[in-house]
Amino acid sequence: MGRVTPKEKTTAVLLFSCKDRIGLVSRLTQLVYEDGGNILDLNEHVDPVEQMFSIRIAWEMSSSSKEPSELGDIFKPLAEEVNATGEVHFLEEKTRTAIFVSKYDHALQEILWRQKMNEFPVDIALVVSNHMDLKDLAAHHDIPFHYHPKTKETRLEQEQNELALLKEYDIDTIVLARYMQILSPVFVQEYQNKIINIHHSFLPAFVGSNPYKQAFQRGVKIIGATSHYVTDDLDEGPIIAQDVIRISHKDTLKDLIRKGRDLERLVLVRALRTHLEHRVLVHGRKTIVFE
Amino acid sequence: MGRVTPKEKTTAVLLFSCKDRIGLVSRLTQLVYEDGGNILDLNEHVDPVEQMFSIRIAWEMSSSSKEPSELGDIFKPLAEEVNATGEVHFLEEKTRTAIFVSKYDHALQEILWRQKMNEFPVDIALVVSNHMDLKDLAAHHDIPFHYHPKTKETRLEQEQNELALLKEYDIDTIVLARYMQILSPVFVQEYQNKIINIHHSFLPAFVGSNPYKQAFQRGVKIIGATSHYVTDDLDEGPIIAQDVIRISHKDTLKDLIRKGRDLERLVLVRALRTHLEHRVLVHGRKTIVFE
Amino acid sequence: MGRVTPKEKTTAVLLFSCKDRIGLVSRLTQLVYEDGGNILDLNEHVDPVEQMFSIRIAWEMSSSSKEPSELGDIFKPLAEEVNATGEVHFLEEKTRTAIFVSKYDHALQEILWRQKMNEFPVDIALVVSNHMDLKDLAAHHDIPFHYHPKTKETRLEQEQNELALLKEYDIDTIVLARYMQILSPVFVQEYQNKIINIHHSFLPAFVGSNPYKQAFQRGVKIIGATSHYVTDDLDEGPIIAQDVIRISHKDTLKDLIRKGRDLERLVLVRALRTHLEHRVLVHGRKTIVFE
Amino acid sequence: MGRVTPKEKTTAVLLFSCKDRIGLVSRLTQLVYEDGGNILDLNEHVDPVEQMFSIRIAWEMSSSSKEPSELGDIFKPLAEEVNATGEVHFLEEKTRTAIFVSKYDHALQEILWRQKMNEFPVDIALVVSNHMDLKDLAAHHDIPFHYHPKTKETRLEQEQNELALLKEYDIDTIVLARYMQILSPVFVQEYQNKIINIHHSFLPAFVGSNPYKQAFQRGVKIIGATSHYVTDDLDEGPIIAQDVIRISHKDTLKDLIRKGRDLERLVLVRALRTHLEHRVLVHGRKTIVFE
Repeated sequence: MGRVTPKEKTTAVLLFSCKDRIGLVSRLTQLVYEDGGNILDLNEHVDPVEQMFSIRIAWEMSSSSKEPSELGDIFKPLAEEVNATGEVHFLEEKTRTAIFVSKYDHALQEILWRQKMNEFPVDIALVVSNHMDLKDLAAHHDIPFHYHPKTKETRLEQEQNELALLKEYDIDTIVLARYMQILSPVFVQEYQNKIINIHHSFLPAFVGSNPYKQAFQRGVKIIGATSHYVTDDLDEGPIIAQDVIRISHKDTLKDLIRKGRDLERLVLVRALRTHLEHRVLVHGRKTIVFE
Repeated sequence: MGRVTPKEKTTAVLLFSCKDRIGLVSRLTQLVYEDGGNILDLNEHVDPVEQMFSIRIAWEMSSSSKEPSELGDIFKPLAEEVNATGEVHFLEEKTRTAIFVSKYDHALQEILWRQKMNEFPVDIALVVSNHMDLKDLAAHHDIPFHYHPKTKETRLEQEQNELALLKEYDIDTIVLARYMQILSPVFVQEYQNKIINIHHSFLPAFVGSNPYKQAFQRGVKIIGATSHYVTDDLDEGPIIAQDVIRISHKDTLKDLIRKGRDLERLVLVRALRTHLEHRVLVHGRKTIVFE
Repeated sequence: MGRVTPKEKTTAVLLFSCKDRIGLVSRLTQLVYEDGGNILDLNEHVDPVEQMFSIRIAWEMSSSSKEPSELGDIFKPLAEEVNATGEVHFLEEKTRTAIFVSKYDHALQEILWRQKMNEFPVDIALVVSNHMDLKDLAAHHDIPFHYHPKTKETRLEQEQNELALLKEYDIDTIVLARYMQILSPVFVQEYQNKIINIHHSFLPAFVGSNPYKQAFQRGVKIIGATSHYVTDDLDEGPIIAQDVIRISHKDTLKDLIRKGRDLERLVLVRALRTHLEHRVLVHGRKTIVFE
Repeated sequence: MGRVTPKEKTTAVLLFSCKDRIGLVSRLTQLVYEDGGNILDLNEHVDPVEQMFSIRIAWEMSSSSKEPSELGDIFKPLAEEVNATGEVHFLEEKTRTAIFVSKYDHALQEILWRQKMNEFPVDIALVVSNHMDLKDLAAHHDIPFHYHPKTKETRLEQEQNELALLKEYDIDTIVLARYMQILSPVFVQEYQNKIINIHHSFLPAFVGSNPYKQAFQRGVKIIGATSHYVTDDLDEGPIIAQDVIRISHKDTLKDLIRKGRDLERLVLVRALRTHLEHRVLVHGRKTIVFE
């Protein structure tokens, strides 16, 4: 579990999930306690339909006898016994993240500004784009910018270049910040529940392209934005965050795009924050977000 | 235009719509002025795409030389000249309204309570249902309750009975307050833009039946409700009002239904209020709501 | 802890709070586990400023060896050791509740309707009022109605009658559903963190009387409602729930009152639900609400 | 009325306000019509308490016989007759605006980004600050930055320098984008209803300094931000826009500040947009915002 380095990791987070059974919270918290950990925040959820157990435990681990890189080991025997998936992270560890963009700057701007404000533990290590428009913005923040134009013919080959690049940069998480290209199943497979997209509608309303135009033509009174993990089914991935804004007959398509930009920015960073703070568990098509 | 009776009508409302051209506001307000009317509230909108002109004028008409029933006449020549649709109403006139229900009481309860509080100018003259469940509730409010069960075979015939009943009761507006039957095109044709439905989802997401179940299974983070005029296309009518509420992984299907009930009630009465105050104009699939 | 009766109690809830120390979650969940309990929902919070530990554990206890009335005993030794306050409740147990009203019916109506829908475990056992207006409403729901008019001179004496009445009816929780009287410290003392009020403003804005008029005169663009536990300081008690609604220059004072009614109803029942589901802990002036 | 230059002004806006009387809309729209104007958007409001008439008319004036700079003349006789205040503006004309800041960058960043996106007709001509922190940000956008430190002793003198500077730069509107200094009555007098402030609370709750700390200590469940015109009474000016965000017991003071930043940015730019589009009329302590 969890890739960690030894210095200044003091707040550990466990995400742990398995079929529900009696005694799990007790045993997990006992393991934390025996290692000297003081629990700061704990959220547990049992899905009453699926009988799935999910937990997030955050604890102060500075008195631990373990090296951070070995902290996950204390949960391994239990995880194996109950056939659980589990990860240990540290809130002080910045997740290495790549941002994929096309031409719009607002979502990238927002993430970069949040990074500067230290709003969440992120290390924006790379910007990839199929257009040159945002090269200067990346440069202004001293972030490597890679131009990867794509055509129908070159798409799959380009993706191989991108996968190599992501490996080179040791990227853990990818954010599609209004990236106007569909990723192939091969690519998605490599970053399961690690690619966060922002779709500019209140999913499942207005899937596909031009959702604002669809919304305008339908005459809805509220528009939305949805951030989700990317899966092979376009716009069908597990939803992490959504929000909406009121519109009226006075709003033109241009107004919808303008109002939507604010939503997109805020919903994407909200989803990104919960991801970076290790608050999200994925079960099938759905997420559990321990806020 | 506008069905009116002579006493105590003092606040007139004009809804007027046509292809945009220069001078319309000036001419309409001149007509009001010449008749001694003092404008209290005016909203005008020109659709920049369709070049459609829409206006709502509310004015104090107690100094008018006209009988209320003839007030609409002053706009007729202009309406004919510019090929406009127009209606004159009075805010003091209560719209005779029928509520169609099935088994759920919450939307009906809410409307009855609002009527009692005089929150909008409505006269609930009739309750029609395909079930007996809400007979007592109607009786408690001294409102005639008509039981019209429907099967596939009897549906169209029942609708004819209902149309006769609506005529008998002089009904202007119909509210489908969680009525679990689809109305036939013949029926809808008789009450164009006069039948208000509440759909328990954020349309166009989750059309059709069981929207809460669909929402639960999709794992959305927000659910909604939509009130719209009924057209021949199910869930496709012009939207009058929408609202949403936040949900989380903790919410079971039962919780969605409970939270949704609050939305349904509030969205339906909001739509009903704007309709009863003559604030809604329909253009094709869309509404203009002068709030 | 917790008053319980033996039959059909299966979902137990522990609320437990003390100065934070290492190992508390582990020990508490161990106690649940040893008694055969299966944890369904657990929320823990450590206040980083005050170093206060708070937890809510909900568990399935049908395999417990204990009688429900004795279930609380298993936490007593630990509670004494760490100087904690703790309560055990059962989600199936309906809290005996009295509603205090004056003339407005909307908040009472709403609570009665929720009770009928089984939205939360409540037993409305008594309505007390300083006016006769809502006697019929209580009667319609077969709830005893007690008329307790109050003047400056009779207030304290009346409160003694009320306290006797509350005891007689075995009342646990009191809801002030737009009750237009201030309760004396003597009365409040008897029902600490058991009296829930709804104030018709976004506290601490517009304390005292006529908050809608204050809001109207100040020209705010949003109005609110606040539900809180009653303390000796008027409008200063720990806040349980708040919500707001947008207004504009078009809204008259009457519109504010109308819009506010919807808020008051919904905020009060939200607060009441969290209270009845034993989700609220009070620390000083503030609440922890485990939603 | 209205400072205008001759080229490319095609959408005119009239803001007009006086004691209500019969015929005003008719006469105003007649004047627009006679000058060849085609009305695109009209909002009228009569305050039922104060009997004040307010109107905003937006019209296409390219067929006007008037120079833009003389367009206001057509309303002058009527304005004088009815003792009205009135202004004519052009939506294509960018308002010369100065931003006053201290150390926080978020509000300034947001406004600059909106300007770049052409979201509203603004010309940020000047940044003034009592600190050097944001000099580079202004420079990056090629905007003159003036450092005006203030002490108790130098404050009034500095303000005189600022007033001279504002005149030199031909500034119409001033935005206090988290500017941590109080302006003197002398200064405010020069820019009546032209200085827009953002206060980081839901006014009138938490006036004065450290509103987030006050909110944290009070234990509110929602925090807000308020944008208002600056008057001599601190935090008492006419409110233009407000919004709120939900918080919980989990949010630390640091979280409130972080969440509040998003509110502050969005509420300030919403207020600024309505101001720049000439949608705001001030009556005493209150605003009419024609949205």
